[in-house]
Amino acid sequence: MGDKTTITIPGWQSISYFSETTNICWFLEPEFAKEVVRLHNVVGNAVTEGRYIVVGTGSSQLILAALYALSSHDAAEPIDVVSAAPYYSSYPLMTDFQKSGHYKWGGDARSFDKDGPYIELVTSPNNPEGHKTGPVLNRSNGLLIHDLAYYWPHYTPISSPSDHDITLFTVSKSTGHAGLRIGWALVKDQEVAKRMTKFIELNTIGVSKDSQLRAAKVLKVVSDSTEEENTEEGKSFFKYSYDVMEQRWKQLRAALEANGLFTVAYFPTGFCTFFNKKTENLPAFVWMKCEKDIENCQSLLRQHKILSRGGKHFGVSQRYVRVSLLDTNENFNLFIDRLSAMQL
Amino acid sequence: MGDKTTITIPGWQSISYFSETTNICWFLEPEFAKEVVRLHNVVGNAVTEGRYIVVGTGSSQLILAALYALSSHDAAEPIDVVSAAPYYSSYPLMTDFQKSGHYKWGGDARSFDKDGPYIELVTSPNNPEGHKTGPVLNRSNGLLIHDLAYYWPHYTPISSPSDHDITLFTVSKSTGHAGLRIGWALVKDQEVAKRMTKFIELNTIGVSKDSQLRAAKVLKVVSDSTEEENTEEGKSFFKYSYDVMEQRWKQLRAALEANGLFTVAYFPTGFCTFFNKKTENLPAFVWMKCEKDIENCQSLLRQHKILSRGGKHFGVSQRYVRVSLLDTNENFNLFIDRLSAMQL
Repeated sequence: MGDKTTITIPGWQSISYFSETTNICWFLEPEFAKEVVRLHNVVGNAVTEGRYIVVGTGSSQLILAALYALSSHDAAEPIDVVSAAPYYSSYPLMTDFQKSGHYKWGGDARSFDKDGPYIELVTSPNNPEGHKTGPVLNRSNGLLIHDLAYYWPHYTPISSPSDHDITLFTVSKSTGHAGLRIGWALVKDQEVAKRMTKFIELNTIGVSKDSQLRAAKVLKVVSDSTEEENTEEGKSFFKYSYDVMEQRWKQLRAALEANGLFTVAYFPTGFCTFFNKKTENLPAFVWMKCEKDIENCQSLLRQHKILSRGGKHFGVSQRYVRVSLLDTNENFNLFIDRLSAMQL
Repeated sequence: MGDKTTITIPGWQSISYFSETTNICWFLEPEFAKEVVRLHNVVGNAVTEGRYIVVGTGSSQLILAALYALSSHDAAEPIDVVSAAPYYSSYPLMTDFQKSGHYKWGGDARSFDKDGPYIELVTSPNNPEGHKTGPVLNRSNGLLIHDLAYYWPHYTPISSPSDHDITLFTVSKSTGHAGLRIGWALVKDQEVAKRMTKFIELNTIGVSKDSQLRAAKVLKVVSDSTEEENTEEGKSFFKYSYDVMEQRWKQLRAALEANGLFTVAYFPTGFCTFFNKKTENLPAFVWMKCEKDIENCQSLLRQHKILSRGGKHFGVSQRYVRVSLLDTNENFNLFIDRLSAMQL
């Protein structure tokens, strides 16, 4: 996008801890909040009306903030946090590293058999394997956190605006700006928004103003590029990104077919309300299962100089691995070359 | 400083999670690390040789990271965290909000009488009352975290370079850029630096690159202004800031003398190796004690439209309050006017 996303910050700007003292999330930059609402309206992937926006240092901090907000601080026992395997590999580590008395990792949601309250983390499309998902437990005493980091039109067909109690998004997956460490939560309940804000206050006293301002600019350019598509020559950000992902998945499927060592799920197409036509599922990761006698898929790939994350981190067997498809063109092509050259 | 601290960030810059994969603190921007070392050398307030630098989302995150790093994760009981009263009001809240099994708030260091291991938080000059301090327990099984947020020449005479196991600094107090949420730790032990880095990885997957780059620019201009002082016309940042603080304390002492309701500590001058002469202690806060029959100093001030934080938050009686002296000129002058007008 050339210079369109360049940002200039003078030394005297956004020095204070505070952004807007009248907002529940008092460290949220109004400009960032405005662009979040606009982008969701442009894309149609989330209801923003009647929602509180809480900004976080990446969606990682918001996951912790949500666990803190949903757990009862007077409870004798920490609440169980579950997610259906294969789940995002960081969930167990993030939940347990503080050894918190408020919440603790409860494992695979499918094998959770306690009666008490619980929090279920729902990632849709799922990281690692890319399918759209919903909660698997559906009990009345369950609390839900929806991590929709990948619910954008270049990864998956947008079927309808998401409409949950707590929904998390992040700049790192929508546009790739991971270095900004900016995520946001759309929160229905005022009390939950207050408690999430309190967590971030005690954890880091707010969130970088500079990165919020830069994120606002980046999201603005993405929305602009979509609205201008019909009148100007350039592709919109999402169309451009969709084409890149489509091309990568084509190369990947060809390489996998050539060596026959792995299986990858088939994804049906779906109607995308954003593109207004049927589109492909083009996950940010490939989730591969080793066939034949290969027990440790990660080791095999490492021998061929391909870095991956093994299934055990996601709560399943080591026959599975996750490989990122969001690296530079150069690295992605190296990956395809090495994958194509593999033989048993 | 005019445009000297302005920063421009193009959209394609610092997109990745990573800054330098070969560094223990893999999300630390090399440019920021360079300017931290340079500034400490220019000011003479900390030894940086042989230290690992860990960057945090404000020094708040680094306090938590240090507690995590110093506690034994196999211990049956959480380690006690203590600090001498009056202590920074956030310490108890930050230590306990996660209800961590690794560490827990143990109260005023002076009344800590357990035999086991402990972590002592030492703030020098102390927040709230501005005196230079050291550890009060000095036992062989104690671990120390030194919070030197205010150890800069505009607040206190620099007597010698600090040389501790873990020392914390923050941009918010050195230059006032709180909105950046950038702090740094100087860490002697490699294993501790690794564990602090791990904490930040699990908490927020690193620290905003944009704010690190901006902080690098701000610190650079501060160092430049000091080195150029002898050759150019302008005052250095520290000389300018010292003069502002000196003027504010003069106004404050005059106002306090006029109404006679409060007492404030006397601070002896000291030789400052940075200014190469005797200088004043000019704390960022005033810590006032109500005299006469006033039991709740915070309430009294609130009646006169002065916002303060009461002594109970700092582990002492409500006869004490802390008031910030770092607000805008306009707000500071309002404070002085209201204080001067107070009568019982």
